[in-house]
Amino acid sequence: MSYTLDRADLADLARGAALLGTGGGGDPYIGRLLVDQALKETGRTITVLDPAELDDDMFVIPTAQMGAPTVMVEKIPRGDEAVIALRTLERHLGRRADATMPIECGGINSMIPLLVAAHTGLPVVDADGMGRAFPELQMETFSVYGVPGSPLAIGGENDEMVIIDTGHDNKRMEWLARGITIRMGGVAHIAEYSMTGADVKRTAVPNTLTLGLRIGRALRTARAEHRDPIAALAATMADTLYNKVRVLFRGKVVDVERRTEAGFARGNATLEAFDGDGKLELTFQNEHLVARVNGEVRCVVPDLICVLDIDTAEPITTEGLRYGQRAVVVGISTPDLMRSPEALAVFGPRAFGLDVEFRPVEELVPE
Amino acid sequence: MSYTLDRADLADLARGAALLGTGGGGDPYIGRLLVDQALKETGRTITVLDPAELDDDMFVIPTAQMGAPTVMVEKIPRGDEAVIALRTLERHLGRRADATMPIECGGINSMIPLLVAAHTGLPVVDADGMGRAFPELQMETFSVYGVPGSPLAIGGENDEMVIIDTGHDNKRMEWLARGITIRMGGVAHIAEYSMTGADVKRTAVPNTLTLGLRIGRALRTARAEHRDPIAALAATMADTLYNKVRVLFRGKVVDVERRTEAGFARGNATLEAFDGDGKLELTFQNEHLVARVNGEVRCVVPDLICVLDIDTAEPITTEGLRYGQRAVVVGISTPDLMRSPEALAVFGPRAFGLDVEFRPVEELVPE
Repeated sequence: MSYTLDRADLADLARGAALLGTGGGGDPYIGRLLVDQALKETGRTITVLDPAELDDDMFVIPTAQMGAPTVMVEKIPRGDEAVIALRTLERHLGRRADATMPIECGGINSMIPLLVAAHTGLPVVDADGMGRAFPELQMETFSVYGVPGSPLAIGGENDEMVIIDTGHDNKRMEWLARGITIRMGGVAHIAEYSMTGADVKRTAVPNTLTLGLRIGRALRTARAEHRDPIAALAATMADTLYNKVRVLFRGKVVDVERRTEAGFARGNATLEAFDGDGKLELTFQNEHLVARVNGEVRCVVPDLICVLDIDTAEPITTEGLRYGQRAVVVGISTPDLMRSPEALAVFGPRAFGLDVEFRPVEELVPE
Repeated sequence: MSYTLDRADLADLARGAALLGTGGGGDPYIGRLLVDQALKETGRTITVLDPAELDDDMFVIPTAQMGAPTVMVEKIPRGDEAVIALRTLERHLGRRADATMPIECGGINSMIPLLVAAHTGLPVVDADGMGRAFPELQMETFSVYGVPGSPLAIGGENDEMVIIDTGHDNKRMEWLARGITIRMGGVAHIAEYSMTGADVKRTAVPNTLTLGLRIGRALRTARAEHRDPIAALAATMADTLYNKVRVLFRGKVVDVERRTEAGFARGNATLEAFDGDGKLELTFQNEHLVARVNGEVRCVVPDLICVLDIDTAEPITTEGLRYGQRAVVVGISTPDLMRSPEALAVFGPRAFGLDVEFRPVEELVPE
């Protein structure tokens, strides 16, 4: 069902999307403020389109921010860079977009299409191309199921624009776009994977904006009512495509090793159990990739690894991890679309150079 | 005067252009072979247009290779990358080129437009935007005198293409294009500074292809006739815009320190006099920037610093410098167009971070 989103929904959506972003996808606070400001200025509301209701020949151009989350929190966007990227791609293609769409779930990357919507009046499709956040542009279900990412347009803060076309080679598109992103200071805004409504229905992970909104609301409500937010999360996920929720660990962050390298935030973090007996180790590239408890793999990409504040279940991003944080780490199953052999070839653990097999979180951690 | 160039002219032109390239501008041998092969395959000859005879509303798109010369000699082009760049820019602009043109003098970069001509049948304008070679794309007389380099198109060996538009900011265009070049492996092919015939007449260094050809011929003839090639060079330059030729030093290369960094070949070289009494030090970034004899500046960018084989006067490129080479180092004055305050601001010694004032070689080394 399509519906209207307004300023009051933004905090919930940003929170829920950040949880789905599994540590990455950008800071939810910055993203929300940008959209809030734009909606206040333009007086608009945002129309969210159910992908199931799209016309097959509708033309959709997804928009996003790319870069290292460690840089994103320091280099605040001007606000219209993604609009420049969208308009650049439209001019290049000689075709206007009927809607925009997120490429990933994440604190900022669920917000960037809303920001474009606030500036342009375009509706936003309630779906995305990752069903979570991933660090690289070829790691999209759009790519897995045959939509070329090219041509990709980048819009910069000095009104500069770049168009990259690598044909069907989405990995090379990522490689070149990352080079530009680094030279733009570590953050850029993009429009890519332009596609028809039929393509959206075939390749996108559906209704993830709504899912983010529901998660954010559930957490807020549970806090207000002094209920366990993790139980509220599990209850929310039960009737979705992400229906297995497992608590992997509870403990304190005792070590974070993080570096901004090659345009990504890479590193590791360690949590120690409160009784000192046992530890969880996280490996991340923008997003969490694998969680090991006492050396045993308990959750692995593309399943979600969510580090949440132990009391409020507020998502903690990889760039926000700090010594001493008390956290609960939750694993969540991803939709079948994201666990197929062709999907795992693109964004399974081997695609990140990890010597780990993918096994579903519900197998690794039985109830 | 416009004229026709054919395969027999290529060796002379490549040699002369490499001399004007002041150590950079790419390897003359590779460039010549590429054009020779293309002319053999297509059966074409190349029409060279005198810039003075261009229609004001003619549309010219210059083409070139960019990258570190140290990489250029190892990563041989497929041959049609610059054509892809040209065609990409034409499509982006919605306008076909009437001619192409070099952006710099150099062993390969005087040849790339000829290669484009051999493939497409376009004529080549006898002029360029540097009057020598420079390492960066904003260092063009086109830029100095107000022609924007953007949009710039890059064509890659995998048929990928990139368009960069930074408006009037040609330095930022260079910065972003260099990022792509590095990610393409250190070498890329570009089309940029599209302009009218009127712009060419106003901003280009004229007749540098012909000058390269004349220099190359003069050196070859002098060798064949056992005359001093340096005297032949000076005689050739006497009636050109580059009419002061000074021998700076004769000696042996005793040290070369060279690194490929940030997409450039940077370094220093030292020559020692044959009697051991005195040395010349060269500093380069792709091209030679300053020559000091016993610590005293004797020639400085944008004047030409040409390292030539002591017997044959064959140009030695910065990436070709080797311990033990016996060389004569020659300084040559550049046209007034390249020594104006606005030109020196863009490609004088300060633009390279050198703490040296520009002084004309004819002042630094009186006859």
